[in-house]
Amino acid sequence: MLNKPRLLTPGPTPLPERVRLVMAQDMIHHRKPAFKKLMGEVQEKLRILFGTSQPVLPLACSGSGAMTAAVHGLFVPGEKVIVVEGGKFGQRWREIASLRGLEVVSIVVEWGRAVSLAEVEAALDAHPDAKGVLMQLSETSTGVLHPVRGIAAVTRKRDVLLVADGISAVGISPCPMDEWGVDCLLTGSQKGLMLPPGLALIALSERAWRKADTVAPSCFYFNLPGERANCEKGQTLFTTPVSLIVGLGESLDMFLEAGLETVYRKQWALTMLARAGTAALGLAPLAPERFTWGLTSVMLPAGVDGTRLLQVAADNHGVVMAGGQDHLKGRILRIGHMGWVDWADIVAGLHAVASGLRTCGAYVGARDYIETGLAAYEAALQVAPGTPV
Amino acid sequence: MLNKPRLLTPGPTPLPERVRLVMAQDMIHHRKPAFKKLMGEVQEKLRILFGTSQPVLPLACSGSGAMTAAVHGLFVPGEKVIVVEGGKFGQRWREIASLRGLEVVSIVVEWGRAVSLAEVEAALDAHPDAKGVLMQLSETSTGVLHPVRGIAAVTRKRDVLLVADGISAVGISPCPMDEWGVDCLLTGSQKGLMLPPGLALIALSERAWRKADTVAPSCFYFNLPGERANCEKGQTLFTTPVSLIVGLGESLDMFLEAGLETVYRKQWALTMLARAGTAALGLAPLAPERFTWGLTSVMLPAGVDGTRLLQVAADNHGVVMAGGQDHLKGRILRIGHMGWVDWADIVAGLHAVASGLRTCGAYVGARDYIETGLAAYEAALQVAPGTPV
Repeated sequence: MLNKPRLLTPGPTPLPERVRLVMAQDMIHHRKPAFKKLMGEVQEKLRILFGTSQPVLPLACSGSGAMTAAVHGLFVPGEKVIVVEGGKFGQRWREIASLRGLEVVSIVVEWGRAVSLAEVEAALDAHPDAKGVLMQLSETSTGVLHPVRGIAAVTRKRDVLLVADGISAVGISPCPMDEWGVDCLLTGSQKGLMLPPGLALIALSERAWRKADTVAPSCFYFNLPGERANCEKGQTLFTTPVSLIVGLGESLDMFLEAGLETVYRKQWALTMLARAGTAALGLAPLAPERFTWGLTSVMLPAGVDGTRLLQVAADNHGVVMAGGQDHLKGRILRIGHMGWVDWADIVAGLHAVASGLRTCGAYVGARDYIETGLAAYEAALQVAPGTPV
Repeated sequence: MLNKPRLLTPGPTPLPERVRLVMAQDMIHHRKPAFKKLMGEVQEKLRILFGTSQPVLPLACSGSGAMTAAVHGLFVPGEKVIVVEGGKFGQRWREIASLRGLEVVSIVVEWGRAVSLAEVEAALDAHPDAKGVLMQLSETSTGVLHPVRGIAAVTRKRDVLLVADGISAVGISPCPMDEWGVDCLLTGSQKGLMLPPGLALIALSERAWRKADTVAPSCFYFNLPGERANCEKGQTLFTTPVSLIVGLGESLDMFLEAGLETVYRKQWALTMLARAGTAALGLAPLAPERFTWGLTSVMLPAGVDGTRLLQVAADNHGVVMAGGQDHLKGRILRIGHMGWVDWADIVAGLHAVASGLRTCGAYVGARDYIETGLAAYEAALQVAPGTPV
């Protein structure tokens, strides 16, 4: 049908033409003045996005690389950390920390539920020797938004570093790290930032840097103090993905021209659109209470083959969405609404879901699910989204 | 003067428009069929380039990341390795291996000289318990080409893994790893492969895989068996730099359409052009005997400020070249002739060098240095370049 491809996955995400074209320029050298000037400008914009006075270090790796860098850079073997394990990426924190030789205390949370402040406080009380809390801000595998702000209010009063994976959150919902007291915030390029994958960003608080400066490097490629020293000179320790840095400058310009408040308001309104629309289609949310602003996860009705539904949506409508991971494979649908997507893309996504449900013989929704979704979107645009607690 | 920028550095390198435009396409998802098909095609092309029947794994990192992955994946703490240390990147092998807890025996080689087969054999005889030799094929900091082929002929008969950094060699001069008996060959995207930085490639021999399969992962992000398992399914363990994989398919098509023999012949002829031209300018080569085919390093006359010369070349002629690193900073000039450059770019480079020397009051060259260079280029094109020993 010559449908336009619409990528509604939780990363990689569609890219603005403006970003793609600026990245199609020919190379500049990463140790020369033109690049240093660019890096300086990008640093200023990144500090606004991260809400920090500290440098925001670009690393040439995926988000998992930045998670690895955080664990190797902030903790030494034998130290104890508390991991919030409520999805695939919470599990990843445990795996990374275990390989680093840390003692891991897991708070296992049902997939779809957010950890509670009380659970984290109880773990901290039971383990006063814990040196860190490793968690997701947004758990991409479930669409849950964990209460990083509330937890930071606790950890900042203790000798405990709060490390937040913001891979599917930075540029999507606010996380001003200095104000909240987050000690380490990291993200990847291919989610909210409207860039191809291949670049990660990581920032540490002042007290996290004090700790990091005492930790001997253990994996040559991940050296946060070395990156900071280079960053101060407008460079990176190793060859950086030049075109992604160029693209980052452009996507951050788009954010700052619109204003971050507008970016978050749009993300909140898209979330309302996706949630109201899928609810009208009769689909229950996987994350009913605390949910991220960049993707919407819904349970599929019993008997619906999630793989087939995704196939119908892609083949008949050009809409590419994601299924579940691990034990949720085939049982949930994840609709990404991050990156360069707008309301009309989500409308297309809702129609593709409805069509897939019909094909699977499981359509029980209202006829006006699109109007319901759009009404929720329009209403959400009228109010400031507030800040996650 | 509205000069065209000409990037004659040993990476990043200029990119073909064809590659830049294909990379400017919008994202596809790295876990979906379209990407898996692309990865399968890229694998076939990469195996031709690397000369191996084994998978060539893409990693989301710089070349130094691949070096880290090789050391963590092939050796365990306490094992002994021999490092050929004849430049900045030889030193890097030592640093990475030391951080991994390996016992390092360095063969220190003067910068500009290649290690000899006899030196490596003597080290292997003196250390029969050594488990590996870590070396550069092309040492980017000096422009030396080390005798990997000859050393592989020795290591393949012993229980010693030969690990070759081909970052500034793959796609520039031949290194058919199966035929030579190289156990690990790695490279980065931003040199011979005519791509932006951000992607590394690594391949292991059959016996290297047997070893790697016994090594427990020590750094979560670098997991070669995990990457191999994903590669067999047309995927990567972590989110891959999708646009670089798309670009890689295109640049490999350009190579294979021209034929690898033509690629190497061009690189050899460009080397003859740069060497004959700089010699006619009165500049002595840093690597007089064994030199790489992707860059030419020359000594600057006493009293010439290398930084100023580079500045004149960039400001007045648009030609960006590289200086020396560490103790050679300001004392040598490195003219890159890798990536999407041709003879006319090198002619422009020679003129920029001549002009810089004049400005620095150190011009002693012949008037016809360009004609001398071009004659060497034309002569070199008439003969097959042969294969490095």
